Amino acid sequence: MDLSAEIIAIGSELLTPQFKDTNSLYLTEELNAIGIPVVMKTVVGDDERYLEHAIRGSLERTPILITMGGLGPTEDDVTRKVIARVLQRQLVLNDEILAKLQRRFKARGVEMPANNARQALVLTGSDILENNHGTAPGLWVAAGKNHVILLPGPPSELRPMFEKSCLPRLREMAGSIALARCVFRTACLPESTLDARIAPIYTKYKNPETTILAKPGQVDIRLTARGKNREEAERLLKELGDQIDQELEEYIFARTEQSLEEIVGLFLVMKNATIATAESCTGGLIAERLTSVPGSSRYFLSGIICYSNESKMELAGIPPLLLEMQGAVSPEVARGLAEGIRARAGTTIGVGVTGIAGPGGGSEAKPVGTVHIAVATPLGTEHRQSFFPGDREKIRWWASQVALDMVRRELMKM
Amino acid sequence: MDLSAEIIAIGSELLTPQFKDTNSLYLTEELNAIGIPVVMKTVVGDDERYLEHAIRGSLERTPILITMGGLGPTEDDVTRKVIARVLQRQLVLNDEILAKLQRRFKARGVEMPANNARQALVLTGSDILENNHGTAPGLWVAAGKNHVILLPGPPSELRPMFEKSCLPRLREMAGSIALARCVFRTACLPESTLDARIAPIYTKYKNPETTILAKPGQVDIRLTARGKNREEAERLLKELGDQIDQELEEYIFARTEQSLEEIVGLFLVMKNATIATAESCTGGLIAERLTSVPGSSRYFLSGIICYSNESKMELAGIPPLLLEMQGAVSPEVARGLAEGIRARAGTTIGVGVTGIAGPGGGSEAKPVGTVHIAVATPLGTEHRQSFFPGDREKIRWWASQVALDMVRRELMKM
Repeated sequence: MDLSAEIIAIGSELLTPQFKDTNSLYLTEELNAIGIPVVMKTVVGDDERYLEHAIRGSLERTPILITMGGLGPTEDDVTRKVIARVLQRQLVLNDEILAKLQRRFKARGVEMPANNARQALVLTGSDILENNHGTAPGLWVAAGKNHVILLPGPPSELRPMFEKSCLPRLREMAGSIALARCVFRTACLPESTLDARIAPIYTKYKNPETTILAKPGQVDIRLTARGKNREEAERLLKELGDQIDQELEEYIFARTEQSLEEIVGLFLVMKNATIATAESCTGGLIAERLTSVPGSSRYFLSGIICYSNESKMELAGIPPLLLEMQGAVSPEVARGLAEGIRARAGTTIGVGVTGIAGPGGGSEAKPVGTVHIAVATPLGTEHRQSFFPGDREKIRWWASQVALDMVRRELMKM
Repeated sequence: MDLSAEIIAIGSELLTPQFKDTNSLYLTEELNAIGIPVVMKTVVGDDERYLEHAIRGSLERTPILITMGGLGPTEDDVTRKVIARVLQRQLVLNDEILAKLQRRFKARGVEMPANNARQALVLTGSDILENNHGTAPGLWVAAGKNHVILLPGPPSELRPMFEKSCLPRLREMAGSIALARCVFRTACLPESTLDARIAPIYTKYKNPETTILAKPGQVDIRLTARGKNREEAERLLKELGDQIDQELEEYIFARTEQSLEEIVGLFLVMKNATIATAESCTGGLIAERLTSVPGSSRYFLSGIICYSNESKMELAGIPPLLLEMQGAVSPEVARGLAEGIRARAGTTIGVGVTGIAGPGGGSEAKPVGTVHIAVATPLGTEHRQSFFPGDREKIRWWASQVALDMVRRELMKM
């Protein structure tokens, strides 16, 4: 078995629609950082049968198991009991823990409830992990090739305990594994098209590991390389990374975890350029995304949302005749919006969008999803016509994504 | 086996420290509502060995297994393959799905990449769950006592598919429990204030069950009553629901699953009114939310985003002297924006927002989070000053929420 870990979170409250898991994200980050991947995460209620099944499954497949929760003083805190049964260990009362529990309650001026003594039960042959932030101590049980680590559920207890009592030992076990990671964020390339281009490259490598995550209008490619040391991991990462970089080049908008609007903002600052928007079907989404970036007032000057034909004429100066002849959804009106707002706001760049976001308003000639996007710059005006699939939300998002990506490409030319 | 369900989420990106699970919470809520508990949740990467182990474990313990994800067109989408192996079924190409996929791509004017054909593979003896929001169809495989339901990962595809193709069948399997549910959506009341008002009421009842979900600027209260039949469930629901309704009255903007912008849209149509927006710190968010509603072109005429002082003068007609005397973030400028855009666009209602979304730009007198919101109507102009906590995103969201709620309240007077 390679060194890898599983996490089992225990507690019926974790199976409600309200529960948001943060412990496992914290543990994943800490484990990954020392080269230990998390291969499975499980959430199970305070139910002995299901918990036992989950634990047995994990022990078969994975060397490190971290459980969180179920160490409290009540009847339904079953973790210790079930793990003792699975590992065929005894549960014995630890006098030192018991004394510490009693002192803790005494310091608060209360008698220790009898059922808290349960928290002083430990598995024979296990190491005790001190809890300085709560009553339940943790346990580390080494059993053959398996290491089972029992942590308390509350983040305020789990985190300091893991950091102080588990990480040093895990780091030693992980030895000299080093990890290197990178990300490529691409815009406006469908997942399947992208994969067809890079699968022949990345499938040749088991290390680095490649994961692909698609969102509307954006696909992220993540590489994680392992090596005996930092240099080796980075060399392996670079070998595959460079090939993917070369294959996708112009579609990659970021090699960091930044959003498209952040990247556009960086380019605008770098080129000392300003921007204004004139939106119809996107209804302010492009302006909203641009201004969601801290400091965007440096480059975003103004925007208009011209839903009605009157506002297209009045706010963006589209000639009435043009609207009548070409219709509001046309290349000419998109160009007019981009050039009109650019002139009016006196910016380096103007963006114009007009289209049919649906569900109504489509026709045979101009079906729902038809969007015209134009970007006006000192170098001229670029126009693109697109047909986006999906519902209103998706069409609007795709349109904003293509518009921002067009702005990015224009800025690269400047 | 009692009727209960497990959920397995599949995808290596789900095992990163960044991943936040929402699908399983949605499914848990829907399943609980028809009386089916979720007994275990598992997250596993795109790894055939671990996935197979997780699926085999689940089939042994639990009658219903729902998988999410891993149905994409790429090499690492392994769900279909692994489940076919575990259930000893063949994977066969379904001509109907293939034709539909090809039509979908053709409609967008692109050739279908060869690897998308993978999404037309189905397990023998399975039922196909149509996907109207993406390419990957779902599958329902009945195998002895087990039901395995394969759903796609993206929430925008998973939710409608589950609702349309899975819930009715599951409800039938769950049998004779009758459920009645309602929701109260409130705006602009902090969760703790709201809970202090209604906890004395709802804690008296175990049935209906009350769940409270807080989002920025919005708190949803959900009641679920169970009864032997529909009448009993509805009677129990009404008893508690009426008390909560009475307590929160004016803060409740919807008694349905509709958003605040949808409710504002309904009111605008009902009152035959139109609206226009002039936004500074919200950067188009209010217009974006209003226009996200299908059919909003009926009442939303135009909007402006005036980030620079020049655009506040030029687009909204704010007098230069006012900006100089009061500063851009002031009650007077908010009023000027609301009244200016209303006059300019010729709408029933004008909305004006100016504030400091941060992280920069704050001062002692006007700290980050200061926002002035004004709503101009035929009855006059309402103004509200707020200090919102949190980061840029949260401040902008709260501002849009308060603005829309003010519009709702003004429309109720008209």
